[in-house]
Amino acid sequence: MQRIYNFNAGPATLPLPVLEEVQKELLDFAGTGMSILEISHRSPAFEKVLQEAKADIKELLGIGEDYEVLFMAGGGSLQFSCVPLNFLAAGQVGAYSITGSFSDKALQEAQKVGTTAVVFSSKAQHYNRVPRPSEIKLPEQCAYLHITGNNTIEGTEYFQYPETGSVPLIADMSSDILSRPFDVQKFSLIYAGVQKNIGPAGTVVVIAKKDFLQGRPKNLPTMLNYEVMLDNDSLYNTPPVYAIYIVGKVAKWLKAQGGLAAMEKRNRAKAALVYAALDAHPEFYRAYADKDSRSIMNVTFGLPTKELEAEFVAQGKAANLGGLKGHRSVGGIRASIYNAMPLAGCQQLADLMEAFWRQHK
Amino acid sequence: MQRIYNFNAGPATLPLPVLEEVQKELLDFAGTGMSILEISHRSPAFEKVLQEAKADIKELLGIGEDYEVLFMAGGGSLQFSCVPLNFLAAGQVGAYSITGSFSDKALQEAQKVGTTAVVFSSKAQHYNRVPRPSEIKLPEQCAYLHITGNNTIEGTEYFQYPETGSVPLIADMSSDILSRPFDVQKFSLIYAGVQKNIGPAGTVVVIAKKDFLQGRPKNLPTMLNYEVMLDNDSLYNTPPVYAIYIVGKVAKWLKAQGGLAAMEKRNRAKAALVYAALDAHPEFYRAYADKDSRSIMNVTFGLPTKELEAEFVAQGKAANLGGLKGHRSVGGIRASIYNAMPLAGCQQLADLMEAFWRQHK
Repeated sequence: MQRIYNFNAGPATLPLPVLEEVQKELLDFAGTGMSILEISHRSPAFEKVLQEAKADIKELLGIGEDYEVLFMAGGGSLQFSCVPLNFLAAGQVGAYSITGSFSDKALQEAQKVGTTAVVFSSKAQHYNRVPRPSEIKLPEQCAYLHITGNNTIEGTEYFQYPETGSVPLIADMSSDILSRPFDVQKFSLIYAGVQKNIGPAGTVVVIAKKDFLQGRPKNLPTMLNYEVMLDNDSLYNTPPVYAIYIVGKVAKWLKAQGGLAAMEKRNRAKAALVYAALDAHPEFYRAYADKDSRSIMNVTFGLPTKELEAEFVAQGKAANLGGLKGHRSVGGIRASIYNAMPLAGCQQLADLMEAFWRQHK
Repeated sequence: MQRIYNFNAGPATLPLPVLEEVQKELLDFAGTGMSILEISHRSPAFEKVLQEAKADIKELLGIGEDYEVLFMAGGGSLQFSCVPLNFLAAGQVGAYSITGSFSDKALQEAQKVGTTAVVFSSKAQHYNRVPRPSEIKLPEQCAYLHITGNNTIEGTEYFQYPETGSVPLIADMSSDILSRPFDVQKFSLIYAGVQKNIGPAGTVVVIAKKDFLQGRPKNLPTMLNYEVMLDNDSLYNTPPVYAIYIVGKVAKWLKAQGGLAAMEKRNRAKAALVYAALDAHPEFYRAYADKDSRSIMNVTFGLPTKELEAEFVAQGKAANLGGLKGHRSVGGIRASIYNAMPLAGCQQLADLMEAFWRQHK
């Protein structure tokens, strides 16, 4: 068996110690005589998994009793609909900051539900940056401001969040959740498909102020109603047991690494290696993102020709660096360097970039 | 490690050879150098998994190109909403046959969307049976008839499906899917949370006539629109990769067992053992379901007192027979004996029933 450095954007690399634990206990979970794939979601063994996962995520984020952690299904894409269905009432305006393809999809789902306003868009500049806080002006009767914390496809990330005063701030953090500390108190609701930084495909973690989730419209489809999920502690129906179990293990791994401050240090060091290689040859490697919006999770860039880009991906693959091809909508190269990507993987990528430049300059 | 006989209703027992395969390849799937938990849903390796799972399910069911197999998220509970949102237009009536708690939940979601009619209900008789085909009279302007193929909580099952003529027949088959052959051609759409008979919690398989899925309303939440799932081959967003992978393995295991005819033979033999033990002492074991509606997937019964029921569950547990406690809404005993439950497990349960009766008669 040879494990590769996996730069895929999601599903993405997971910590090897987590995978080894999962493998070890696959036939008999916690002495139950059953696999985690087989145990009842109402069993004490799973209840422990669920409560520990929630508690560990709250501990990592430094949040207390006023916030709840929920696990839902359907990915970020279903959350795009849940947000306006739950929070965009008639007479209100849902405000959206459009910084990438997924922001745009979130907006489109809201447009089916009610009135929306685009308060920032870098679409005409190929989503090259996120807004500065001062650029955001909220409309009257604003139900919420929705932002995308990290733009996976384009490689940009917010490091300063907008100030919204009494207007609820909602964020899709699918691709940077638990990668660094931030002030959760600014947010009324955060959602994140877990398949990038903290788990396998199959669940979405929702972190929200409890009182924000209360009083939802009664006629919503039950499975899209945040209040029902809150009242049932994510167990209204059978949840994605396995995905929650792995998120729980990743959360424990993050704690063992030193928590989010340690992860930020490591993630910034990883990103610095790759960006340094990029900036060393700006006439050859063309960065997609403006410098002050550069994501520390997804590094995106182009080479002089499509042929060179294909050759770069191929050389990466040959050197056990997988998943470097950019998203089909933007092309080029994308290196996703989430929590579980080791520094050594980023170093090898930086080395490849230098060597490739020497070959083709 | 001691594996138990797991009679839980779902998540439920899975075939041991499937679990062993999953365990073996957990760190490196199909030579990719990545875990199945880490691979991209757009990778050739996963594409193969998805297409084989679909093809194997179609082969098991004996269906052709006019049907599609989709994988969705959110469980049967989200399908309760998807069905009326997709198919119940203004001026139409959604017909529901109410044979258990889950039928009733499906109805409640439809009532939020449009006009409904209850064409059969055994609710007043504690859901003791399913209807005979002749009992069902459909309303005018009927959009569809929705049935629950097997009632997990109550232990009843349809063995003859209603005749609906040109009215689409839709079924929730979460707890009997792929347990025996049936005429799929009668159905326009079947959905099944996979966590009972064919996989772990985390995905729903939808089997539907392609032309039934076309022409859906454009303003639905995208993730609830069957046509979008059809057009994107279940890959509109990141699907629950791991759950689909295991369903695919279970489908291959079912083929290796001889397909659905062989499974029916085995499942009927298993059920016969347990029902024979039940019927041997009708003054002691009280069957919940009418004889001609008895499920071959979930056997439900009561004992003379709650104390005896608790003692029965405890003796089962001590003998490595787990998960025998009935659903909290009905109490008593429930033995779920899905595809992966071996005959030996049912024999041990029948033996326990006989011995327990001798102790307490």
